[in-house]
Amino acid sequence: MRVIVLGADGYLGWPTSLHLSARGYEVVAVDSLVRRRWDTLCGTSSLVPIATMERRVARWAAETGRNIQWVRLDLRNRADLTELITRHRPDAVVHFAEQRSAPYSMIGAEQAVETQVNNVVGTLNLLFALRESAPDCHLVKLGTMGEYGTPNIDIEEGFIEIEHNGRRDRLPYPKQPGSFYHLSKVHDSHNIMFACKTWGLRSTDLNQGVVYGCATPETQIHPELRTRFDYDDIWGTVLNRYCVQAAIGRPLTVYGQGGQTRGFIDIRDTVRCIELTIANPPQPGEYRVFNQFTEQFSVGELAERVREARRAHGLETEIVHLPNPRAEAESHYYNAKHQKLIELGLQPHLLAETLIEDVIQTVERHRHRVRVETIEPRVDWRKGALINLRARRTSDRSPRARSTLGR
Amino acid sequence: MRVIVLGADGYLGWPTSLHLSARGYEVVAVDSLVRRRWDTLCGTSSLVPIATMERRVARWAAETGRNIQWVRLDLRNRADLTELITRHRPDAVVHFAEQRSAPYSMIGAEQAVETQVNNVVGTLNLLFALRESAPDCHLVKLGTMGEYGTPNIDIEEGFIEIEHNGRRDRLPYPKQPGSFYHLSKVHDSHNIMFACKTWGLRSTDLNQGVVYGCATPETQIHPELRTRFDYDDIWGTVLNRYCVQAAIGRPLTVYGQGGQTRGFIDIRDTVRCIELTIANPPQPGEYRVFNQFTEQFSVGELAERVREARRAHGLETEIVHLPNPRAEAESHYYNAKHQKLIELGLQPHLLAETLIEDVIQTVERHRHRVRVETIEPRVDWRKGALINLRARRTSDRSPRARSTLGR
Repeated sequence: MRVIVLGADGYLGWPTSLHLSARGYEVVAVDSLVRRRWDTLCGTSSLVPIATMERRVARWAAETGRNIQWVRLDLRNRADLTELITRHRPDAVVHFAEQRSAPYSMIGAEQAVETQVNNVVGTLNLLFALRESAPDCHLVKLGTMGEYGTPNIDIEEGFIEIEHNGRRDRLPYPKQPGSFYHLSKVHDSHNIMFACKTWGLRSTDLNQGVVYGCATPETQIHPELRTRFDYDDIWGTVLNRYCVQAAIGRPLTVYGQGGQTRGFIDIRDTVRCIELTIANPPQPGEYRVFNQFTEQFSVGELAERVREARRAHGLETEIVHLPNPRAEAESHYYNAKHQKLIELGLQPHLLAETLIEDVIQTVERHRHRVRVETIEPRVDWRKGALINLRARRTSDRSPRARSTLGR
Repeated sequence: MRVIVLGADGYLGWPTSLHLSARGYEVVAVDSLVRRRWDTLCGTSSLVPIATMERRVARWAAETGRNIQWVRLDLRNRADLTELITRHRPDAVVHFAEQRSAPYSMIGAEQAVETQVNNVVGTLNLLFALRESAPDCHLVKLGTMGEYGTPNIDIEEGFIEIEHNGRRDRLPYPKQPGSFYHLSKVHDSHNIMFACKTWGLRSTDLNQGVVYGCATPETQIHPELRTRFDYDDIWGTVLNRYCVQAAIGRPLTVYGQGGQTRGFIDIRDTVRCIELTIANPPQPGEYRVFNQFTEQFSVGELAERVREARRAHGLETEIVHLPNPRAEAESHYYNAKHQKLIELGLQPHLLAETLIEDVIQTVERHRHRVRVETIEPRVDWRKGALINLRARRTSDRSPRARSTLGR
């Protein structure tokens, strides 16, 4: 079975490529490498050193005898993408290849437009390429739980049965995304749903929660197989950031009151969810949505969990609350369904203190690489980052100031 | 009160500019003129000859003594747009400046991407320009009733109260748009709602029905003030197309069974709705939705109305059913609310045989300009237009074939 993984250089795309290859899938790993360029722009860097894609696939072949084909390609280039799909005629395409940082999308107009054009156009190009050359291929698209926002009713998996004025219908679940990035995923979802209905394509939209963890069994085989680990304000997810703060003896920084509740998932479950999804494709013409997370926590609770894990080792960790740079409810109802992947066989790795300790130990091995100045939030949802930039540039006339977001 | 009309060269943008100017608003009329270029590409042309924007505003000043300022500008150029908003600091911006043809958006990948990038990026640029320079300005955005699709429950105005598992919330109405064009408007709606919530902007999203008619009192003052009238398969709306078919003695072509029901509105009501919306702005931070139409008809019923209007003059009109080029339900429940503009004072021009006759008479005056070959559908929702193009190009090697969509 042939699978193309788009965005294969990323935090999750790379472990997914390895996970599928290890299980006998023929994997084509595709990426534009733009994420590494965005790191340069933002002054951010993976805590764990990562090898080039060339070294990664060579190392994987050397260690396991399995071949992953590496292709550098930007999805915005429709001709190249169509040629790729036509050449490989994959059974499934796993689409991680999007700008995936909410803070990045909120820096300013340029980044908001870049995020939406990159994500929406890449996905549109993919839909047309599939229609042309692989209409039976299963599109496995990474969405986000953030598409739903925080409604005051239960969150269903993609669709909701509504009774209204004595009539009923099953309709797409209403979306209230909270950043230009999250909005781009909502736009994608609508475009994909339409393409399935109109052209008979088949797709699974995986509305993923916040991912934590730094390794899967395959990435641990050799240092050159490691995946990136982000902890900064732009690319880092909250639990990974807390672990870095704990490891370097800094306070855990909770945004606002800390009552913001989200779905979370271990990186080892992410790769398993992708495998289960591919193994159980939808019908032709079917667009379905799985909520891909395993547990709900508030960001305040998560900070407590990290503090407790440290306390078990006799270490005290401070928790501080920062003014929230995001525009979001800090105390709200949240109950999101996530049964469909369980029904397909997912056995979740629930968050345990041992996992938190594992991550912190990994961080400690690389603590000399932590860029402390990238941890506190630099992007404000209401003002963007340009205001800080300008303020900084008045006193600091370094030409680097602009390209490094005012650091 | 200063109003910028974006898309002022269009079917509705121009009459709106005149309507507002006639009522004492200070109007800045803005357009990129891309619509005239798209006409060249598609081999289409306004039935009614239209003057250049320069001649139009000069004629308006000569006839009424009122000045409309004309600015050529593309919303995708963020710097120019921001400069425009900063210079004029308008009280309201009326945003018609989008690619507005569903068939155009379905020609192929190039047009789908062009439509979504043009519409989404233009609106994003506008939102950022307003945040920067005119945060209190009222954004009056043209959406479409087609954002809702045809759900099996009543369509509300933008939001719906949902009770689910014992809890309640008022949420954005679920959207099921039926083309890449309609999808682009859904994307816009989500982006605008977010900007209002996060930045405190204020906006009214006018989900407009299908517009018919060819004139307003102001466009009738002088031939150089006329607005465009489209009747072709790409740009023409259904009733206007039927009137052209009737005027030239051709059968009225109904797509599929004809049970497709939509909201409709007279062009004279469109300009009045814009005026009422501007005169009654939302609160800062408020995003509201008005459904801007006055009556519901099925496309089959409309064909009958045209036939009856002709019969009153002793003329027989044939109605034929074509295979539906669109992917849509041809028999469905449809009940869409449209109270909010009525509550603000709209007194609808309901569809009467006299209006149909007026339009047909206008067509008859210009019947020598009808391009018969542009009336029947050339774009198939499932296959696009490229398939026809290629088939045609095999036998017709003219280099014009591609740029005129296989005509």
